[in-house]
Amino acid sequence: MTHSKLTIVALGGLGEFGRNMLVFEYEHELIVVDAGLMFPDSEMLGVDVVIPDMRYVFERRDRVRGVIVTHGHEDHIGALPYLLAQVDAPVYATRLTRGLIEGKLREAGIQGADLHTVTPGDVLRLGAFVIELFYMTHSIPDGVGLAIRTPAGLVVHSGDFKFDHTPANGWRSDFAKLASLGGEGVLLLLSDSTNAETPGYTPSERELAEVMGRVFQGAEGRVIVATFASNISRMQQVMDLAAEGDRKVAVVGRSMVTNVRIARDLGYLCVHEDLLVTPDYLDRLDPHRAVLLCTGTQGEPTSALVRMARGDHRQLAIQPGDTVIVSATPIPGNEKLVHRTLDDLFRLGADVYYDEVLNVHVSGHGGREEQKLLINLVRPRFFVPIHGDYRHLVLHRNLAVECGIDPARAVIIESGDILELDAQGATVVDRVSDDYVLVDGRSISDVGRDVLAARQRLSTNGAVLVSVLLDKFTGGLLEEPTIETRGFAYECEVPTFLEAARAEVRRAVEQGGSRSELDARLSRVLAKVALATTGRYPMVVATVHKA
Amino acid sequence: MTHSKLTIVALGGLGEFGRNMLVFEYEHELIVVDAGLMFPDSEMLGVDVVIPDMRYVFERRDRVRGVIVTHGHEDHIGALPYLLAQVDAPVYATRLTRGLIEGKLREAGIQGADLHTVTPGDVLRLGAFVIELFYMTHSIPDGVGLAIRTPAGLVVHSGDFKFDHTPANGWRSDFAKLASLGGEGVLLLLSDSTNAETPGYTPSERELAEVMGRVFQGAEGRVIVATFASNISRMQQVMDLAAEGDRKVAVVGRSMVTNVRIARDLGYLCVHEDLLVTPDYLDRLDPHRAVLLCTGTQGEPTSALVRMARGDHRQLAIQPGDTVIVSATPIPGNEKLVHRTLDDLFRLGADVYYDEVLNVHVSGHGGREEQKLLINLVRPRFFVPIHGDYRHLVLHRNLAVECGIDPARAVIIESGDILELDAQGATVVDRVSDDYVLVDGRSISDVGRDVLAARQRLSTNGAVLVSVLLDKFTGGLLEEPTIETRGFAYECEVPTFLEAARAEVRRAVEQGGSRSELDARLSRVLAKVALATTGRYPMVVATVHKA
Repeated sequence: MTHSKLTIVALGGLGEFGRNMLVFEYEHELIVVDAGLMFPDSEMLGVDVVIPDMRYVFERRDRVRGVIVTHGHEDHIGALPYLLAQVDAPVYATRLTRGLIEGKLREAGIQGADLHTVTPGDVLRLGAFVIELFYMTHSIPDGVGLAIRTPAGLVVHSGDFKFDHTPANGWRSDFAKLASLGGEGVLLLLSDSTNAETPGYTPSERELAEVMGRVFQGAEGRVIVATFASNISRMQQVMDLAAEGDRKVAVVGRSMVTNVRIARDLGYLCVHEDLLVTPDYLDRLDPHRAVLLCTGTQGEPTSALVRMARGDHRQLAIQPGDTVIVSATPIPGNEKLVHRTLDDLFRLGADVYYDEVLNVHVSGHGGREEQKLLINLVRPRFFVPIHGDYRHLVLHRNLAVECGIDPARAVIIESGDILELDAQGATVVDRVSDDYVLVDGRSISDVGRDVLAARQRLSTNGAVLVSVLLDKFTGGLLEEPTIETRGFAYECEVPTFLEAARAEVRRAVEQGGSRSELDARLSRVLAKVALATTGRYPMVVATVHKA
Repeated sequence: MTHSKLTIVALGGLGEFGRNMLVFEYEHELIVVDAGLMFPDSEMLGVDVVIPDMRYVFERRDRVRGVIVTHGHEDHIGALPYLLAQVDAPVYATRLTRGLIEGKLREAGIQGADLHTVTPGDVLRLGAFVIELFYMTHSIPDGVGLAIRTPAGLVVHSGDFKFDHTPANGWRSDFAKLASLGGEGVLLLLSDSTNAETPGYTPSERELAEVMGRVFQGAEGRVIVATFASNISRMQQVMDLAAEGDRKVAVVGRSMVTNVRIARDLGYLCVHEDLLVTPDYLDRLDPHRAVLLCTGTQGEPTSALVRMARGDHRQLAIQPGDTVIVSATPIPGNEKLVHRTLDDLFRLGADVYYDEVLNVHVSGHGGREEQKLLINLVRPRFFVPIHGDYRHLVLHRNLAVECGIDPARAVIIESGDILELDAQGATVVDRVSDDYVLVDGRSISDVGRDVLAARQRLSTNGAVLVSVLLDKFTGGLLEEPTIETRGFAYECEVPTFLEAARAEVRRAVEQGGSRSELDARLSRVLAKVALATTGRYPMVVATVHKA
């Protein structure tokens, strides 16, 4: 009996961090694993979030047998509202993940989604696919890996994972299941590459308890802990330390309050009701009885921590004697904002502990030794690194080869690639669009390169606007040309520029011509004047009226 | 006999990285130590460089007895052209530093500067100040610290330093001089805080030789090394490794070529003439005989490394089999650009070694143990941390207290502060402007907040421009309103926006009013339409003509 090949379409998360999304296709039946978003680069000016180009799925919407979500982080669930707005497929997720998805869909106004709660150990039969879920430890509880059985062979998807032997929340990665899958014979391992640059093992979440415990004990005033709103395990640790030290906890920040509620409702955060207080209650407590749990680890301008650091939080102010723990590392690109927040906190007299000076954070992803361990537990025939920038994929792929995977079967693919495989081989047979789909204000659109290029130019050189009114018979100026600038010239430069610009506009008008000729000529001469008087290249827009 | 107090004016480099500049004043005589620039934050859109507000010096230009420069990095010499354009004072620098300053002044068209070459051990008598220079190791040769004798007491300025016992270029920090100054009695130590977050000792530049040596030996093809153009010691190491491996070296990149020339002319880079080849000669060599030394460690778009990574360098292309060493760490804010360059290099098939995966870089600044050693060698009465963001100053100050400095005498000051001190005390008595002076195109100006705010808005929301021509008697539209957008709406949004905008403009015009009333109303209604149709807040500029 001959089988068809398995097709894997990488819609996002390969050669980039974020917007993780894979499609598995076998004889015209599809399943989707994860549908995440990505936060934009600093060059994507004004863009809110970036999602995968999902047209491949939209065009096959009737054949999607299910969507499986590995865990509840934004880079795995953030594009679900956009997917489910167009595709009416059942969604399978563990309990906490489902709770977080429901929150997202509610915010996006998506109703009637067909959500199913699954538990590790469950087996889903979705068309040709039989999917088993198993625990993988990550920085959010209830994360799973997937064993995807297809007629072409067994695929193991790691999800995001670390091998934490003492996770704070009690769920260990399922070594036994991984080993038994390895024994069964795995066609392909898709594995998380996030920490492919990091030697050794990622420390356990439990080791944090000791470090943070010492900080809590040494703190004479309030303790303010900033972490990711999704890091339920970290929150649990802070709650436990607060309880031990006879402190009360106020949770601040919309996303954190929401997630604490969801996690408590679902039993993923064990907190005695007495422990929690409202933020305004904190002032009534002795400082050494107070803990504040908040967001802001990335220097986000609207977060509670940053507003406190800047001294413009409505309710809360940093006091000398406060101890601040920033329990996260900056995501690349956020360093400057994070550093500024740390500086501001120090300026207000707080004692500040952060990753550079104390180990108050551990990663949710395994280091190189853990990546090797997974490879050797699963012993796949083919290896494809996922979840990482291109360099992580290369480093992870080379690691797999070091572990004995045949170099010809350790394959790097990127977002947009369509991989076909069976036991004989894995080949990239085609590509789909890997264009960034940008969500900006109300708009969801494809690339919009012109708009971004214009913003780039405007952002560094500003704009010059000229509007002239000409006599329709003589072509002469009926009034002084109106010249406005925005973001272009500094105060001291403006008079020189305007004088030269007016003279050049007059000269340009005298040469006559059609409206469009004049438009073009005005733009040209003003660009020249701008460069000569300021050294800059503003965007010039000319309007010609005739009356 | 009573002495006056010593005044120290911090013009830059305290509470920020870059634009280092201190003024020492005693009874109306001034000396200046360093005059550096800073590279702008990503928020300072379009700004080229940032320099200190030097008005304090300009207003006292006749009393400036000298400018002393500790070493030749941009953040210590980059503002000299702007200082010397207004202040005619003698400048003292060691030989290499002077060579680099001459290059800068030539570029800036500053002629007739009064430059003096000094050598560690020299004593300068500048008015009330007697200044002795001594070696301090840094990532550029010929760096010095200063012993500044004043009637109020002895001040030690560390410059930028590390205690490298085996520096690549042979100059060690002058332990004996520091200890002897300590014995003499030091009023104040001003010390480099750059690595106040880094525990232990910074590895020696010599340790790199071993790591890079292994990479060179393992490289079967060309070796491409990117480093800072100012890191003469690193270049020396690369040249030495190339010579050992019987390879030739091509130097690429304007700043690197210039610095190699200056350093060779002055004897700071020992290279046999035969070793160097032109970049186009590389193609004639066996790949394993070729080394390319270039800039681009920060992902600078116009650098040789980045253009090669993107495949658009005129002369040079990355080949599979090339080994690339990026010998530097990203300066905060540059991470994304650096990562993209690494990814591109991997994509082109190069083996890439960089700080995260191999120790191919060491810092030029001492770690916390070295900071402690300096404090204990010098044993100052007062301690003021310099060269660092605010958090570094705090951490360094706390370190000094741990080393036994009286907490009341370990003082944090920031750029703009005026500190007065004598043996009895150190007090911030006043402030001068610490405004960023922005160099943007041809303009040197003070803050220009409006311009930057406009660019910020334009960069994320774009611009909408409307120009209407009205009948001067009836106030009615004489033609369709002209509405242009730039960087505002994506293609799919434009028709909806324009239709709504035209209707609102017509309605706004019908309400009549003066030109300025109409201007304001048009801006208001278009902002509303923009928000309603796209969710964005563009900058709106309205022009009203009447004929």
